[in-house]
Amino acid sequence: MFFNFLPKEVNFFDLFDKQVDYSVEAARYFKELVSRGAVDEESLEKMHEIEHNADNVAHDIIEYLNKTFITPFDREDILALAKELDDIADMIYTIVSRVRVYKLTGVNKNLVDFSLMIDDSVAAVARAVKGLRSTKNSKAIQDACVEINRLENVGDDMRDKALVELFDREKDPIAVIKWKEVYQDAETVLDICEDVTHVVGAILVKQA
Amino acid sequence: MFFNFLPKEVNFFDLFDKQVDYSVEAARYFKELVSRGAVDEESLEKMHEIEHNADNVAHDIIEYLNKTFITPFDREDILALAKELDDIADMIYTIVSRVRVYKLTGVNKNLVDFSLMIDDSVAAVARAVKGLRSTKNSKAIQDACVEINRLENVGDDMRDKALVELFDREKDPIAVIKWKEVYQDAETVLDICEDVTHVVGAILVKQA
Amino acid sequence: MFFNFLPKEVNFFDLFDKQVDYSVEAARYFKELVSRGAVDEESLEKMHEIEHNADNVAHDIIEYLNKTFITPFDREDILALAKELDDIADMIYTIVSRVRVYKLTGVNKNLVDFSLMIDDSVAAVARAVKGLRSTKNSKAIQDACVEINRLENVGDDMRDKALVELFDREKDPIAVIKWKEVYQDAETVLDICEDVTHVVGAILVKQA
Repeated sequence: MFFNFLPKEVNFFDLFDKQVDYSVEAARYFKELVSRGAVDEESLEKMHEIEHNADNVAHDIIEYLNKTFITPFDREDILALAKELDDIADMIYTIVSRVRVYKLTGVNKNLVDFSLMIDDSVAAVARAVKGLRSTKNSKAIQDACVEINRLENVGDDMRDKALVELFDREKDPIAVIKWKEVYQDAETVLDICEDVTHVVGAILVKQA
Repeated sequence: MFFNFLPKEVNFFDLFDKQVDYSVEAARYFKELVSRGAVDEESLEKMHEIEHNADNVAHDIIEYLNKTFITPFDREDILALAKELDDIADMIYTIVSRVRVYKLTGVNKNLVDFSLMIDDSVAAVARAVKGLRSTKNSKAIQDACVEINRLENVGDDMRDKALVELFDREKDPIAVIKWKEVYQDAETVLDICEDVTHVVGAILVKQA
Repeated sequence: MFFNFLPKEVNFFDLFDKQVDYSVEAARYFKELVSRGAVDEESLEKMHEIEHNADNVAHDIIEYLNKTFITPFDREDILALAKELDDIADMIYTIVSRVRVYKLTGVNKNLVDFSLMIDDSVAAVARAVKGLRSTKNSKAIQDACVEINRLENVGDDMRDKALVELFDREKDPIAVIKWKEVYQDAETVLDICEDVTHVVGAILVKQA
């Protein structure tokens, strides 16, 4: 974690762009895997690599923060933003790993719907985070945050609907255990995206 | 989150009073629903509204904090307190929503006991938080915190007892899955109340 | 929490030594219990006492922090370190308590393997935390952190292997529910140890 050497010309905005790009890549690849309906060893490995890359950028940001006096926004907000973005890729990897470990195969309509919403929400997270470079983007950032919050609410209903269906139709308790965890984790990705809006909101308010 | 406009005369104590009142309302309504033994769509909606109101006050506190230089106690403690109080209403709503989604009906003795303890603990949280207005209340605040910690310990034993009973008596794995989650979430409310005492303790020590 | 009286001559390093010693004691006792294959009331009580002692030191650290102006490293890092170390003993106690409540008996090979890794990881945590007394130890601290990170990765694979086995071999859904929780909690201990390396890393970087 604290063994990296960062190039001189790097800055926080570049690092956050890089980190959020990995989140977007994770969400996109998740959508692809879910629509395919199976996770093989190779796909899991690829998702692990994305998660690992995201993790490295988070560490770079923290290392850079610890070595830097002048920051574009509050240190606590930089830390919180790096942590939340890291959690996005982490949680998506966890879901893919569960799907593999639990040997869940076949295209699952609810999980496909979740993956589309996650892809949309993470895309909005990217717009919000990349917008932080300039105060001129505050309207666009707020729009992205409104969209993320909307998707989180839709996600709550989606998870409840998926759980109702699961408990109504699935009579095998083992399958219930597996899918329940996957659905709840999928909704958690949308929760984390919403947490990003809280940090972004704090940054915007302080700039105003 | 960051689109609200707060009136000029507001202060942190008023906002915390408002926030903790919603926690109390949530705990009280939870007790009522649980003793009734069923959650219909209307009750769930009402609990959602309480949770939503609590959430709005949390956002007001954070927005106000980000715009204010002079605060009655450390910024980190204000943030932590707002977050913990928000988590109380959130978790109570989650439980009610699970009871509805899992179609759990009938009065459950263990859940009734939990709801009584949660009601007591949140009432003590309200006494502690409202006491922060004046250093004269430090004894009353400490008493409330002792009570919250006691209830958290009782809650741990309660959850263990409820789980032992569940695994001993309930032979349907699907029902085990549902009730296990509800019991663990109920105990989590008492954990969150205990987390409030940590923040309140930090505030008291710094004032001393 | 905020009712203790600390002796004058105490300092943060002494308190962290004491706290990490309780984590080590918890991990060691956990290894012993798991190799024995049963948790009786007395063992659970003893583990509870260790957890309680660890908790008391965490409270002492927080109280001391709130009363002290000069600290050996950043206040936020002291708080984070005390919290993570507290979580180690907490989570180990939770696992032992689950094993007891779920009436899981017999030596479980996977849980034994986890207990060995947890013992190793917590020992490395102790080396890292105790090393913080002197900047001369930075190489030894980094080695300990590398080991903790390695064990966390091994732990992820271990949990996945244990879950694959569980879902392949165990046909009783109730047993699946119990063991799944215990395995996931065991892996969480290694996650918490990794979180310690993040705090330790932040402290090292700031000292450099």
